[in-house]
Amino acid sequence: MPYFNKNYHPPGTPPGTLVEHVSGATGELSMRLIDYTDQEYLDQVVTDVEQCRPYLERDSISWIHFQGHTQAEVLRNIGELFGLHPLAMEDVMNSGQRPKVEEYEEQLFIIMAMPAEQDKPHLFEQVSIFMGKNYLISFHNGEHDPFDPLRKRLQKHGGRIRSLKSDYLLYGILDLVIDQGFPVLESFGERIEALEDELLDSPARSTLSEIHRLRRELLLLRRMLWPHRDVVNYLQRGDEPLISEDTLIYLRDCYDHSVQIMDLLENYRDMATSMLDVYLSSASYRLNEVMRVLTIIATIFIPLTFISGVYGMNFHNPDSPWAMPELGWYYGYPMVWGIMLLVVVGMLLYFKRKDCL
Amino acid sequence: MPYFNKNYHPPGTPPGTLVEHVSGATGELSMRLIDYTDQEYLDQVVTDVEQCRPYLERDSISWIHFQGHTQAEVLRNIGELFGLHPLAMEDVMNSGQRPKVEEYEEQLFIIMAMPAEQDKPHLFEQVSIFMGKNYLISFHNGEHDPFDPLRKRLQKHGGRIRSLKSDYLLYGILDLVIDQGFPVLESFGERIEALEDELLDSPARSTLSEIHRLRRELLLLRRMLWPHRDVVNYLQRGDEPLISEDTLIYLRDCYDHSVQIMDLLENYRDMATSMLDVYLSSASYRLNEVMRVLTIIATIFIPLTFISGVYGMNFHNPDSPWAMPELGWYYGYPMVWGIMLLVVVGMLLYFKRKDCL
Amino acid sequence: MPYFNKNYHPPGTPPGTLVEHVSGATGELSMRLIDYTDQEYLDQVVTDVEQCRPYLERDSISWIHFQGHTQAEVLRNIGELFGLHPLAMEDVMNSGQRPKVEEYEEQLFIIMAMPAEQDKPHLFEQVSIFMGKNYLISFHNGEHDPFDPLRKRLQKHGGRIRSLKSDYLLYGILDLVIDQGFPVLESFGERIEALEDELLDSPARSTLSEIHRLRRELLLLRRMLWPHRDVVNYLQRGDEPLISEDTLIYLRDCYDHSVQIMDLLENYRDMATSMLDVYLSSASYRLNEVMRVLTIIATIFIPLTFISGVYGMNFHNPDSPWAMPELGWYYGYPMVWGIMLLVVVGMLLYFKRKDCL
Amino acid sequence: MPYFNKNYHPPGTPPGTLVEHVSGATGELSMRLIDYTDQEYLDQVVTDVEQCRPYLERDSISWIHFQGHTQAEVLRNIGELFGLHPLAMEDVMNSGQRPKVEEYEEQLFIIMAMPAEQDKPHLFEQVSIFMGKNYLISFHNGEHDPFDPLRKRLQKHGGRIRSLKSDYLLYGILDLVIDQGFPVLESFGERIEALEDELLDSPARSTLSEIHRLRRELLLLRRMLWPHRDVVNYLQRGDEPLISEDTLIYLRDCYDHSVQIMDLLENYRDMATSMLDVYLSSASYRLNEVMRVLTIIATIFIPLTFISGVYGMNFHNPDSPWAMPELGWYYGYPMVWGIMLLVVVGMLLYFKRKDCL
Amino acid sequence: MPYFNKNYHPPGTPPGTLVEHVSGATGELSMRLIDYTDQEYLDQVVTDVEQCRPYLERDSISWIHFQGHTQAEVLRNIGELFGLHPLAMEDVMNSGQRPKVEEYEEQLFIIMAMPAEQDKPHLFEQVSIFMGKNYLISFHNGEHDPFDPLRKRLQKHGGRIRSLKSDYLLYGILDLVIDQGFPVLESFGERIEALEDELLDSPARSTLSEIHRLRRELLLLRRMLWPHRDVVNYLQRGDEPLISEDTLIYLRDCYDHSVQIMDLLENYRDMATSMLDVYLSSASYRLNEVMRVLTIIATIFIPLTFISGVYGMNFHNPDSPWAMPELGWYYGYPMVWGIMLLVVVGMLLYFKRKDCL
Repeated sequence: MPYFNKNYHPPGTPPGTLVEHVSGATGELSMRLIDYTDQEYLDQVVTDVEQCRPYLERDSISWIHFQGHTQAEVLRNIGELFGLHPLAMEDVMNSGQRPKVEEYEEQLFIIMAMPAEQDKPHLFEQVSIFMGKNYLISFHNGEHDPFDPLRKRLQKHGGRIRSLKSDYLLYGILDLVIDQGFPVLESFGERIEALEDELLDSPARSTLSEIHRLRRELLLLRRMLWPHRDVVNYLQRGDEPLISEDTLIYLRDCYDHSVQIMDLLENYRDMATSMLDVYLSSASYRLNEVMRVLTIIATIFIPLTFISGVYGMNFHNPDSPWAMPELGWYYGYPMVWGIMLLVVVGMLLYFKRKDCL
Repeated sequence: MPYFNKNYHPPGTPPGTLVEHVSGATGELSMRLIDYTDQEYLDQVVTDVEQCRPYLERDSISWIHFQGHTQAEVLRNIGELFGLHPLAMEDVMNSGQRPKVEEYEEQLFIIMAMPAEQDKPHLFEQVSIFMGKNYLISFHNGEHDPFDPLRKRLQKHGGRIRSLKSDYLLYGILDLVIDQGFPVLESFGERIEALEDELLDSPARSTLSEIHRLRRELLLLRRMLWPHRDVVNYLQRGDEPLISEDTLIYLRDCYDHSVQIMDLLENYRDMATSMLDVYLSSASYRLNEVMRVLTIIATIFIPLTFISGVYGMNFHNPDSPWAMPELGWYYGYPMVWGIMLLVVVGMLLYFKRKDCL
Repeated sequence: MPYFNKNYHPPGTPPGTLVEHVSGATGELSMRLIDYTDQEYLDQVVTDVEQCRPYLERDSISWIHFQGHTQAEVLRNIGELFGLHPLAMEDVMNSGQRPKVEEYEEQLFIIMAMPAEQDKPHLFEQVSIFMGKNYLISFHNGEHDPFDPLRKRLQKHGGRIRSLKSDYLLYGILDLVIDQGFPVLESFGERIEALEDELLDSPARSTLSEIHRLRRELLLLRRMLWPHRDVVNYLQRGDEPLISEDTLIYLRDCYDHSVQIMDLLENYRDMATSMLDVYLSSASYRLNEVMRVLTIIATIFIPLTFISGVYGMNFHNPDSPWAMPELGWYYGYPMVWGIMLLVVVGMLLYFKRKDCL
Repeated sequence: MPYFNKNYHPPGTPPGTLVEHVSGATGELSMRLIDYTDQEYLDQVVTDVEQCRPYLERDSISWIHFQGHTQAEVLRNIGELFGLHPLAMEDVMNSGQRPKVEEYEEQLFIIMAMPAEQDKPHLFEQVSIFMGKNYLISFHNGEHDPFDPLRKRLQKHGGRIRSLKSDYLLYGILDLVIDQGFPVLESFGERIEALEDELLDSPARSTLSEIHRLRRELLLLRRMLWPHRDVVNYLQRGDEPLISEDTLIYLRDCYDHSVQIMDLLENYRDMATSMLDVYLSSASYRLNEVMRVLTIIATIFIPLTFISGVYGMNFHNPDSPWAMPELGWYYGYPMVWGIMLLVVVGMLLYFKRKDCL
Repeated sequence: MPYFNKNYHPPGTPPGTLVEHVSGATGELSMRLIDYTDQEYLDQVVTDVEQCRPYLERDSISWIHFQGHTQAEVLRNIGELFGLHPLAMEDVMNSGQRPKVEEYEEQLFIIMAMPAEQDKPHLFEQVSIFMGKNYLISFHNGEHDPFDPLRKRLQKHGGRIRSLKSDYLLYGILDLVIDQGFPVLESFGERIEALEDELLDSPARSTLSEIHRLRRELLLLRRMLWPHRDVVNYLQRGDEPLISEDTLIYLRDCYDHSVQIMDLLENYRDMATSMLDVYLSSASYRLNEVMRVLTIIATIFIPLTFISGVYGMNFHNPDSPWAMPELGWYYGYPMVWGIMLLVVVGMLLYFKRKDCL
C-alpha cells in the first residue's frame, strides 16, 4: 500500500481530460442494466451503451452498473448519452478520489470509497454514482461486484425498494458501501487485540513494525472514510430536490453508521498511539530487569575476584616479614574464605536495604 | 471487553431487519406495565403486548418497560401496536448503539448507554426509549431492572412525577441513566489513585498493562457517554413539542450532570496519559540508579584486579634483574596495597568531583 | 486531593433532594445581613432567616451571606422565603459543582469556584449566589469569610458600590472570586520555576512525582476555572434584564481577568508536559555519561587483566621450549608492560577518534 | 532552507514601500503578452510596459506575464498603468508571502505559493496575480516559466479556454499551481517510504536527522499550502462579480484538489511523528538485545573466573592442613571443572526459567 | 523572565484603583505632543498635561505620547482631561496586560504588547493607546521611544499620513508594534537553527535546558502575540465609526502580518517539540553505540581471562595424573593460545552473523 496514489494528471492538463491509468482499476469492464417499476423487473447484461437509451425514456427506474476497469472511450459514450460533466467523468477515471457529493444541473454525482478485501494492493475501491430523476449509473473499479444483495432485494416483488424512486436505490448503495466498513473495522479490532497481547506478553522487533503499519493503515482508512459522513450529511439535510422526504429518514440511519465507524476509528488510533508508548515503556522495564541481574552478579563477584587475585601474587622475598605473610599463616586460607563470605553477605544486605536491586 | 461490538448486520441487509444477536442481551424478556394519573397508580407484569392496548386509549400515562433479551417476534408486535419505525426497532435489537435521539412523527426515540456493573463482559447496557404523548416504552437489555427507585417515586401519591406528563417520566429515566455514570467514575477515580501510588512507589510490569487497560476503558466510556450530552442538549433546546416548558429546567440539570461526567472523563484520560510518561521516566530513573552502583563497583575493582593480576605473573629468569624485581623487594607487598589504596581514593575523589556518580 | 468529589446523590434520587454531605463543607453556618442604600448602611449578624424579611420589602439592597456548613433545614427556610428553585438549592448543598449561571424566573443563580488556601483538603470552596432585583444571597462553604474587602468598600459612604444596584454587588463578588485565582497562579508559577531549577540541576526521584502532582492539580484547577469565563461571558452579553448597562463595562474587565487566568493555566500545563519530557531526556543523558565512564574503564582494563592473567599461568614442562618461554626471557617483564602500555594508548586513540566516548 | 524568510521591511517602513530584496527572486525579468479572443491569438515578448496599453482598451483578454526578478522601477510603471494598489505591489516585491486573495475596487489580487523543484534554496516560488475584467497580470519569481502547458491550450483554436473570460484563465493558473503540489507530495511519499524501510531495517544516526528534516519541510509545506484552500474557497463561494457562474464548477474541482493535498500532508505529518517514536522504540529494543548478550556472557564467566582465581592463590604453609588442601587432592582439578560446569548449567537454567534473558 | 507577572491587584481591590508597581515600568516619564494638519506640524516636549488642552479644541490631529514609567498622579490628570475610563487607566498602570481593544463612548482603548530587546528582564513592553476623533494618546512603558520612524513620516510634508485622520495614525502605530515581531522571530529562527545543528552534531547537557528555555519563551511570545490578531480583526471588520473606509485596507495588511507571525510561531513551537524528541532519540542512539563497544570488548575478553585464570591455578599433587596435566604437556602453552584464538574468532563470527553488534 503506497502512501501516494499516482492517479493524478500532470499539472496543466486541461480539466476533463480522460486518460486511463493502469494501476487501481482491475478486471474487464462489464455493463449491467436493471430496469424496474413497482410491477416489472428487468436484469440484463449490456454490451453497448446505446442499448440503454429506450429504457431512459420510460418512466421506470434504470440502474446501469459498470464493473471493472473503465475505458476512456466507453466513458465518453456514456457521458454523451446521459449528459455527464467532463470534470465528473475525470474523477471516475482517476480512481482514488476523496469521497464527495456534487450537484450538477439535473444530476447528483457521488464518489464513495469502498474498503477492499485484505490482500489487495489498494486499501480502497472507488464507487462513483450519477443519479438522475429516474436513473442511476454506478461504477465500481474493483474485481467483484458487491451489489448482489441489493439486486436480490430488487428482484423481490413488493419490497419497499421497488416502490420507491432512484433516491432510495441511491440510499441502498450508500448504505451497502458504508456498512462495508464494519467488517473491515472488525478485522482491525482483532488485529489490535492480538497486537496488545503480543505487546504485553513478549514484545518482539516485529511488534514494533506491526504497530507502525497499523497506524499507517488506520490513517489511510480515516482519510477515506471521514468524508463519507459529509456526503451523507449533505444528502440528508433535505435541501436536495432529487431526494424525497421518505428517503431522508433512511439516510439519517446511514449517517449514524458512518458516525459510528468514525468513532471506532478514532478509538483505534488512540489505542495504536498508546501501544507505541507501552512498547517503549515495556522495553525500558525489561532492560531494567536485565541490568539488575547483571549488576547483582557483577558487584558480588568482582570484589571476590579481586581478593583471590591478591593472594595469587608472587611476592616471595624470604627475608622480608612483609612479603605476603598471610600466605604462610596457619588459618590464612579459611580466613580469606571468611572475608569473601562477609563481602557477599554485606553486598546482599546493602542491596536488600536499598531495595533498588 | 472486545474493541468491536459484533452486533451489526452484514452489508446489504434491508433496513429494519430484526435479527436476534446472541451476545449483548442477557436474561429473559419480562414486560411490566405502569399506568398512572395524578390519582391512580397501577403496576402489573404483562405477558402479552395486547394487554396494554386499553390503557393506551385512556388519558393516563402508560409506561411499559421491557427487561432483558428482546425477541424479534415480540418487538414486531409492539411495533405494530405503537406504530414504531422499523429503523428504530432495528436499533433496539442491535444493542451497543451510540446514544442518540430521533424524532418520528408522533414519537421521540432515544437510545442511552447505561454503564454496567464491573464484572460484566460488556461495559454498557442499552436503554432504548420511545416516548409518545401519553405513553413511554423502555427497553433495557441488562439483567437487573435499574428503574426501581423511579417506581418508588411514582408510587408515592402527590409527588411531582405523578402530576406531570410522560416527558417528566422521560427526564426521570434519562437522569437515572446519566447519574449511573457517577459511581462508575468514582470507581475509576479510585483505580487511578491506586495506580498512581503503585506507579510512584514500586512500578511493576503489571502496572504498565494496568495503565493501558485503563486508557482503553476510558476511551470506550468516553465514546458512549459523550453523545449523552448531545441527546440532552437536543431535548432541552425547547423546540420539541412533546417536551413541556416545566420539564426543560430539569433537563438543564441533567445536561449539567452529563457535562460534569465528560469533564471528569477528560481529566482521567489526561492523567492516564501522564501516567504512561511517568512510568517511562521512572523506569529510566531506576535504571540510572542501578547503573551508577554497577559503575562505581566496577571502575573501582577492575583496576585493582589488574594490579593484583600483574604480581601474579610468573616471570622467573633468575639471571635477569628485570624479571619482576618488585616481587623480591622488602616492602613490595605493602607497596602494592599502598598503590591500590591510592587508586581507590583517587577514583572516589574523581566520582565525587564529577558529581555524576 | 482526591480525583472524585463524592458529593453526588445515588442515581434515581428525586431532583431537589437536600442531603447534608459531611465532607467538603466546613465550619458552623453563620448568617450576616447587610442592607444599604446610597445613604444608609446596616451590617448585622442574623440568627433566624425570618429577621431578613422586613428588609426585603424595602427598596434598599439586602445582601445576606451564609458562611460555612449549610444545613438542609436552614436552606429549606431560606428557599421558602426567597422562592428559590429546589434544583438550585440542591446545587448549593452538593458543593463541588461546576461553575455556572442559571436564570430562574426573577433570579439569577450563579455558582463559582473559589481556589482555597493551600493546605486545605479541597482545592476549591464553592460560592453560590442568588441575585434578585434588590437582594443578593451568597453562600460560601469555606472556613474564612473572604468578602471583608468588599464590606469595607460598602461601608465607605459615597463609593460607587453604594450608589449602584445589586448587579454591581454581584460584579464585586465575581471579581473578588475570580481574582482569587491570581495569588494561586502566582504560587503555581513559583513551584514551576523551583521544579525547573531542580530538574535541570539535579533531577531526583521526587522531582518526578512532584511534576505529576503539579499536572494533576493544574488539571483540577483548569476544570473548575474554565467555566468562570462562560459565566462572566453570559452575564456581560447584555441580554440579562437584571444586569444594568453600567455594570456591563465592569463585567468586561472581569471577563478579561478570567481569560488571563486561563491563558496562564494553559501555559503552565504546556510547561508541565515539557518538564516530563525534559526529565526523561535528562535521565537519558546522565545514563549516557555514567555508561561512558564505565565503558572507558572497562575496555581499557579488561584486556590488561587478560594479559597479566596469561603470564600468571603455570605451564612448567622444563623439557618443552614451548612452555611459556617468555617467562624466562631477560626482558620478558618490561616487554609485557610495554605491550600493556601499547594497548592502553591504542584504546585511548580509538576512543578519541570515534569521538563517541 | 532557513526557518525565517528575510523579505520583510524594518518596522515603521511606510506601507507600499517597494524595495528590492536580493534573495528569493532569481533570473532576469522578462515580460510576455498574450492577447486572445475566440478568433485571434497573439503571443509576444514585450520590453516596455507601455506596449500593452493598446491591448487593454480592446475587448480581448490580455494576459501579461512577468517572469523572474521583479524590479521596483518596472513594478511602479505597471502599477500606474493598471491602477494597482501600493500594498499589493509591496506584496509582489516581498516574495515569500502567505497565499491570499484580496479584493480591490475593480481587481482581484491573488498570491499563490508554487512548490519549487527540489534543489532550490527556497521551497517555494511566489505567483502573484492581478485579475481585472479583461486582463490578467501574473508574476512568477522563479527561474523557469511554468505556464507553458497553459499557453499550448490557449493556442489551440476552439478550446474552452479561448471562448471564456479572464476568470477561466485565472482558474487555469490556480489549477496549475495547486496541482504542482502532487509531484512534490509524490516525492515526499517516496522519501517517507524509503525512511520507513531504513528505520525498521537498520536505523542509523542519519535516519534521525533525516526524519527531523522531513518534519521541518512538511511543516513549511503545510504553512504555505494550507491557505490555498481558503483562497479557492473564497473564489468559489460565488459572491465575486468577476467570477462567472461557469467557472465556479471548475473552481470547485480546484478546491477538491487542494483539500486532497492537505489531507495527504496531514497524513504525512502523522507518519513522520510516528517514525520518531518508532526510532526511539527501536533503539530501545536494540539496546535490550545488546545488553542481554553482555549480561549472559558476563554472569556466566565472572563466577567462573572467580573460582579459577581462588585456586590460583598461593597459600603454602606446609604445616597447616588448612592451606588450600584442595590443591593437593588427587581429583582436585577435575572437581573444580565439575563445580564450574555446575555453575554454568545452573545459570543457564535460571536464565531459561526467568525467560527474561 | 518569570512565569508570572506580578502586576495584579490583591483580590477585592476596587476597580479602577491606580497603584504604581515598581517592576515592569522603566525610565522616567516624558511627554511629547505632536499636533499636525495637512499643512502644519508641531512637535514639542510637554511637562504639564494642561499644555495639551488648547490643541485638543482645534481641528488638528493631536498625538500625545508618554514614554516610560507612568505615575498614578499624572495618569489621573490625563484621565480627567480626556475623560478616560478608570478601568482603562488601571490597565495602563498594571502593565503586562493581554492585548485587547475596548470601545468606550467616544474612544477606542487598545493595548498592544511590544516584544522588547533581548537582554531586558521582561519579554514585552506594553503600548496602550486611546484614540478619539482628533487625538491619540499613547503610553509606552519601555526605556526607548520606538516611534521615531513614524515621526519622521509625519514630518514629511505631503505624505499620506499627514492628510488622513487619527485612525491612520493608529494604523501606523499598530503596524509598527506588530512588525516588531519580525526581527524577534528572526532571532528565534536563528536560535532554532543553531540548536538543531548542536542537537544533531553533539548534544550536550546544556542543549536540553536551551530547548526547554526556547519552548518557554515561545509560549510566552505566543500568549502575548496571539491576541494581536483579534485586535486588528476587530478594527478591520468595519463596524467601528472611528475607523474610516480608507484605513480598512491598511488594517487588512496589518492583519496579514499578524497572521504570518502566528503561523511562524506555531511552526517554531512544533520544531521545538520535535527537537526534544530528537534529543531523546539521539541520546538513545549514542547509548547504543557506547554499549556495543563495551559489549564487544567485554564478551571477547572475559572468556579469555577465564581461560588464563584456569591455568594459573596451583593444583600440584605430584602423585595425581589429574593435577592439571596440561601444564606439563609439551605443546600446552601454544594450545591454550590456540583455544583462545578460536574463542575470539568464534565470538566475532557470532557478532557478525547476528549483525546486532
